[in-house]
Amino acid sequence: MLPIHLLSTGKALPEQQVTSAELDARLGHRAGYVRKKSGIDVRHHATLTEHQSELAGAAVRDALRRADVPAASIDLLISASGVQEQALPNTAARILEPAGLPAGTPAFDVNASCLSFLTALHVASSLLTTGAYKRIAVVASDLASRGIDWDDAETALIFGDGAAAVIVEAAPSISGAGIHAYRMETYPAGKTYCEIRAGGTRRNPRTGAQPTDYLFHMDGKRVFKLASQLMDGFLDRLFTGSGYTLRDMHVVVPHQASHLGMQHLRKRLGVPEASVVDIYAQHGNQVAASIPTALHEAVTTQRIEPGKPVLLVGTAAGLTLGGMVLTL
Amino acid sequence: MLPIHLLSTGKALPEQQVTSAELDARLGHRAGYVRKKSGIDVRHHATLTEHQSELAGAAVRDALRRADVPAASIDLLISASGVQEQALPNTAARILEPAGLPAGTPAFDVNASCLSFLTALHVASSLLTTGAYKRIAVVASDLASRGIDWDDAETALIFGDGAAAVIVEAAPSISGAGIHAYRMETYPAGKTYCEIRAGGTRRNPRTGAQPTDYLFHMDGKRVFKLASQLMDGFLDRLFTGSGYTLRDMHVVVPHQASHLGMQHLRKRLGVPEASVVDIYAQHGNQVAASIPTALHEAVTTQRIEPGKPVLLVGTAAGLTLGGMVLTL
Repeated sequence: MLPIHLLSTGKALPEQQVTSAELDARLGHRAGYVRKKSGIDVRHHATLTEHQSELAGAAVRDALRRADVPAASIDLLISASGVQEQALPNTAARILEPAGLPAGTPAFDVNASCLSFLTALHVASSLLTTGAYKRIAVVASDLASRGIDWDDAETALIFGDGAAAVIVEAAPSISGAGIHAYRMETYPAGKTYCEIRAGGTRRNPRTGAQPTDYLFHMDGKRVFKLASQLMDGFLDRLFTGSGYTLRDMHVVVPHQASHLGMQHLRKRLGVPEASVVDIYAQHGNQVAASIPTALHEAVTTQRIEPGKPVLLVGTAAGLTLGGMVLTL
Repeated sequence: MLPIHLLSTGKALPEQQVTSAELDARLGHRAGYVRKKSGIDVRHHATLTEHQSELAGAAVRDALRRADVPAASIDLLISASGVQEQALPNTAARILEPAGLPAGTPAFDVNASCLSFLTALHVASSLLTTGAYKRIAVVASDLASRGIDWDDAETALIFGDGAAAVIVEAAPSISGAGIHAYRMETYPAGKTYCEIRAGGTRRNPRTGAQPTDYLFHMDGKRVFKLASQLMDGFLDRLFTGSGYTLRDMHVVVPHQASHLGMQHLRKRLGVPEASVVDIYAQHGNQVAASIPTALHEAVTTQRIEPGKPVLLVGTAAGLTLGGMVLTL
């Protein structure tokens, strides 16, 4: 067990709302089509002059404000986005100033696609446990709208932009709060099922990148099939030795991948609907920002009770599966 | 102190060598100009059909082979590149197969620009110390050649491609081996001094990215000035409480930023030339792969003696300063 204390959470959304009704009109569908197809009422999309690092900074400031914690008390910033702001430097270095954190605060990125936040929270907890840092801010921010392929009926409707942050510190073991189980597995058979091919060394102007290489591509059926095959065994391995089972979970915070995906996961696992945190209809799939935004929702609406276990779980491009059992 | 055992190191270079004499001819300089200007005899550049993940995989396999360690014993892969292979998914997921690691091995990225390896090694050591994993491979790979601006006289000559890996596991505290000091500081005043502006959400085809946005830009004078101002105080803070001073360092493995930069750092700090690992003339600046490639050189040439402290140190786009005191 990693004894950590979740001191605060925060979130930020771009101002611009995009309703499913607006998308019906914009994309030439009959009224109600996008709502029914996507399961989303409204998602937020940044304008083209807004930046990911500003949104991330706003989420960190929100988390600081809610706990009344001084920015100077944060001794590490971890950025946990699915897609970076630039190829170089790392995104965390660009978030320090908008977050109001002092110059000199170390800042690095952790990336596990849609599960970056889960991975970064585990890394942060290990760094706190070994005493390397005392108080860490982890922030996930993604502007999925920048990579939407509007010609792809499957993926164009589901993405929303956003950012969410947590502030964590080491807790006394006796408090019982912390990470009771954590597991991550990556299956590269799925590495091309969800991707943005450009943006790095593989496809760029020098190697003949095409305009569509900068957009998000998903083979939804294959992702769904591979993830479904792997999830049951993965959860068994996650819970083994933790002293918990899936039935013990008081609240489940899933990655908000899609409304069908979440429904399927919930039914397959036999998790009661009331225990699942579902913010999808008001946010869409926010890539790596989904899990911490849903966690923020669960914390601020008092759905999570002290000492009662919470399961954070999801799948990510890679294909990666990840899960964490946490008590606050 | 984080007690870890460096079980093995490995490296990989693309086959294609680019000599400074060839660059004289290609860029229309008089014979000897590029050698004198860059301090490099030869650097390696991948061909346009070679991929970063393949080079990274070769470095991991080299490290496995040298220690005669089975791939299945690695229970986490961390990719620590300065620039990713694609915007999505994370690079580590794409390295698993070329590295020969089994499907299901968790794989995530750590990014602190040129200091990604140092940061990832610290993260890996924390994860080993808390018992989350038993044996971790950390690999840094960068194809800087994909982002070279051949019209920029300052930066076109200095970059080489490469990859290097280490395998680490938890050590008994009694062995004395491990990380004795670690420090990282990020100064966002320098965030635009070294950058590739495109590749993420900020500048892409949708926001009107220009061809030069995909290339590496550096304001060398400003980087040098800011890094010089900060380095003395940074090293004081790194060594404080560690029980070591700079004079105790048996070997210094600096980021191979540039030959002038390394000379300046060495003289300024009063480090004897013989203690500095300098592979620059045969590799150039390999971005995040520089430090682990130099560490591999120092290990395989028996320059590092058991129990004698090694300083890994450098600066990175961000601007980030990082340092680690390690004994093997």
